[in-house]
Amino acid sequence: MDNRYSFLGGKRGPWRVARLDGLRGAGLEAVERLQIVQGEWAESASEAAWVLRGLTSNVRYATRPEVDALRERQPALARPEARCAALIPIKKSARWWELAQDERRAIFEETSHHTAIGMEFLPAVARRLHHCRDIGEPFDFLTWFEYAPEHTHAFEDLLDRLRVTREWDFVEREVDIRLEHIDARI
Amino acid sequence: MDNRYSFLGGKRGPWRVARLDGLRGAGLEAVERLQIVQGEWAESASEAAWVLRGLTSNVRYATRPEVDALRERQPALARPEARCAALIPIKKSARWWELAQDERRAIFEETSHHTAIGMEFLPAVARRLHHCRDIGEPFDFLTWFEYAPEHTHAFEDLLDRLRVTREWDFVEREVDIRLEHIDARI
Repeated sequence: MDNRYSFLGGKRGPWRVARLDGLRGAGLEAVERLQIVQGEWAESASEAAWVLRGLTSNVRYATRPEVDALRERQPALARPEARCAALIPIKKSARWWELAQDERRAIFEETSHHTAIGMEFLPAVARRLHHCRDIGEPFDFLTWFEYAPEHTHAFEDLLDRLRVTREWDFVEREVDIRLEHIDARI
Repeated sequence: MDNRYSFLGGKRGPWRVARLDGLRGAGLEAVERLQIVQGEWAESASEAAWVLRGLTSNVRYATRPEVDALRERQPALARPEARCAALIPIKKSARWWELAQDERRAIFEETSHHTAIGMEFLPAVARRLHHCRDIGEPFDFLTWFEYAPEHTHAFEDLLDRLRVTREWDFVEREVDIRLEHIDARI
């Protein structure tokens, strides 16, 4: 199983871009479609306005009870009913990365309740986290979410709650891309 | 500052290979010299028998008191007197990576005292940790150490103490490469 993913914004792909909002820092060029490629890094194809690369990795903050609770509740990606998606690339500040592990964990969970908040929206919202800071990408994380249309408001609530946490004081760039699948998802 | 490093084993480079021992799992082909290249990944040059790639990253386990104590005591690399070095590539088991963050931390430090043991050998032994599991390399970590010849025995003690810890139960591949710098280090 290859842990590398490329997100290509351009004119192709099964995801239609419904909205693309730069929330903090530099935005991203508006595009019509998004394509996701797993495996070998996608070249900056002439058709793509931008390519974002990330990789899945081991758990970095979650404790055993949190991992178990997540595994029990979190759904798989590509559910037929999950025709809505969001790609939210985030970059955190140098100050965040200079913190020690216990300091980052304390802000992430004990103060900001990141996992606990996310847990409230399971199994409605499926997600996958891609890391990209270490591979020289412009963002630190590419977070990918999938949900059914009727859970759009719940997803907005989830983001609203996370964005007012202390953890978000360390977010210096954030783009919010909303997507709709153009075909039946089988 | 580029966080990518390539270690090329072959016939070139300022580090003469004094010993190359496969300790667990598959070894590495014996070579005469080692060269370290920072920046763009080195190609698998025809002259190199093997190329190992890794990148530096943020702290993953250390707490604030540990980070502060390390920063206060740890020396820089490339000290003129540090004519000896070791490259120790390590791969941990799938079981290790499936652990939650608190479980890995507990084994790493509260049980195995990895940082505390390392601290006892500062400032004699300088080190840099390179991560490589997420980028599809054969090892998870490439650990690089530099020390003066008179601290060789201390360095052996350090390794002896780490290799009997519970953390090492999760090490499934380890190669130990000892090196000597062939020129004055200026």
